[in-house]
Amino acid sequence: MSSLQRFGVSMDASLVGAFDEQIQQVGYANRSEAIRDLVRDYLVRQQWQVPDATVVGTITLVYDHHTADIEHHLTHIQHEHTANICSNTHVHLDQHNCIEVIVVRGSGATVKAIAEQLIASRGVKHGQLACTTTGAEIV
Amino acid sequence: MSSLQRFGVSMDASLVGAFDEQIQQVGYANRSEAIRDLVRDYLVRQQWQVPDATVVGTITLVYDHHTADIEHHLTHIQHEHTANICSNTHVHLDQHNCIEVIVVRGSGATVKAIAEQLIASRGVKHGQLACTTTGAEIV
Amino acid sequence: MSSLQRFGVSMDASLVGAFDEQIQQVGYANRSEAIRDLVRDYLVRQQWQVPDATVVGTITLVYDHHTADIEHHLTHIQHEHTANICSNTHVHLDQHNCIEVIVVRGSGATVKAIAEQLIASRGVKHGQLACTTTGAEIV
Amino acid sequence: MSSLQRFGVSMDASLVGAFDEQIQQVGYANRSEAIRDLVRDYLVRQQWQVPDATVVGTITLVYDHHTADIEHHLTHIQHEHTANICSNTHVHLDQHNCIEVIVVRGSGATVKAIAEQLIASRGVKHGQLACTTTGAEIV
Repeated sequence: MSSLQRFGVSMDASLVGAFDEQIQQVGYANRSEAIRDLVRDYLVRQQWQVPDATVVGTITLVYDHHTADIEHHLTHIQHEHTANICSNTHVHLDQHNCIEVIVVRGSGATVKAIAEQLIASRGVKHGQLACTTTGAEIV
Repeated sequence: MSSLQRFGVSMDASLVGAFDEQIQQVGYANRSEAIRDLVRDYLVRQQWQVPDATVVGTITLVYDHHTADIEHHLTHIQHEHTANICSNTHVHLDQHNCIEVIVVRGSGATVKAIAEQLIASRGVKHGQLACTTTGAEIV
Repeated sequence: MSSLQRFGVSMDASLVGAFDEQIQQVGYANRSEAIRDLVRDYLVRQQWQVPDATVVGTITLVYDHHTADIEHHLTHIQHEHTANICSNTHVHLDQHNCIEVIVVRGSGATVKAIAEQLIASRGVKHGQLACTTTGAEIV
Repeated sequence: MSSLQRFGVSMDASLVGAFDEQIQQVGYANRSEAIRDLVRDYLVRQQWQVPDATVVGTITLVYDHHTADIEHHLTHIQHEHTANICSNTHVHLDQHNCIEVIVVRGSGATVKAIAEQLIASRGVKHGQLACTTTGAEIV
């Protein structure tokens, strides 16, 4: 379905050396794999700038589940966006604190708006949105 | 267990106005809640700078599960860090693409190293690390 | 011209304590000043999301001035956008490397496009865009 | 002094296509130039993680120059770090607002500490640090 293309890149030898050293430390199998990752990451960042592109985001919420009504409130927001919510994971960090990780798919604007609404909820101590891709156009 | 403190903040009236307008759009219940969120986010960012502080990260990986050996490889890396892995969620995005979301706890350096190793794996199309907190010191 | 408003914020005492400790280290004169900074930074980030808002960006370019034609090329791009360029500073880092810092004013989209064009120029080793404000609506 | 190295990269044809389309829009002369930029940016981000590496930062400060004592205060901080300050540019944005752009060289920790101290100063409305390189090891 997909075809592999091979092309040449010219780069200063000392730049190649510094890059090889770094990617070996991190654990890349080879230079092509590392460069593909840089290219894909660049394209994903661009997708988030295009208003209509479908993207995927992971919303991470940390909260104290003793906060009145918080679980009900977070569930309620998610139910208003069921078409966009792919999954929800709940982890108990300690007796008080939970982390909830929600995978959301939609336009960048939609995903950001859902994230902002959840993060703004009373009782959410910290929220983060990680911006990624459906993978469909990123091979 | 925790005691609420109330203190005054002075701010230019037009700055307060612009802030109120923005946080109402996003859905904050009130100004205190929004300011608490800004303060907590500031403290979480500082925690990630302190070498020994225990933090929590959410690692998001997008990959094609048809890539040879990828699932086995990602599982293998996670098994080397079982003490740090809190949870793992797998979502099917389409026939080819999956998203795997892993909650990791440890020092900032440890969480970053696990994220780099997973993201560098052959077949991972895109990886992201979201930096958050255990919630324990962020009330 | 501007009037100071004072309002109360309620926050868990231990959160106030952690915040105070952190901002004293950094050198804030008091809590209000630090909270004003967090509020302003939040508003500036929002301004960059609004298509028509006028913002200011600082573009930093590092390059080897021996690269053929680079200075002429960078000057040429800037002359195409004279209405948006506020200033240009050039620093000699060593015998080869220069840093050029360009202050640009315009819509977020315009400032980003100028930054991308300059950073993409052959011979620019590294480029960065810092997103800030005209200060006009941020008091 | 430097020698050019040429190596092959294999990449899915559709990924190459999407990348080419994107970099043409931005204005890259060719694919090698764009890939060199991604590699250099990756290496610069790593340099900022290494405690002893010498890096360069651009600090952008927006302030109202009518704020009592602010110019004297900002100058004072910079004079305490003359060994690290490379340049200082001041632009008048309007009757009230100025932007000051300071190029700083040193370890990542030093550059961040100077930035935090300046940004925390009373009267600074917004501050940003752009993280770049001396260019010396990035060819």
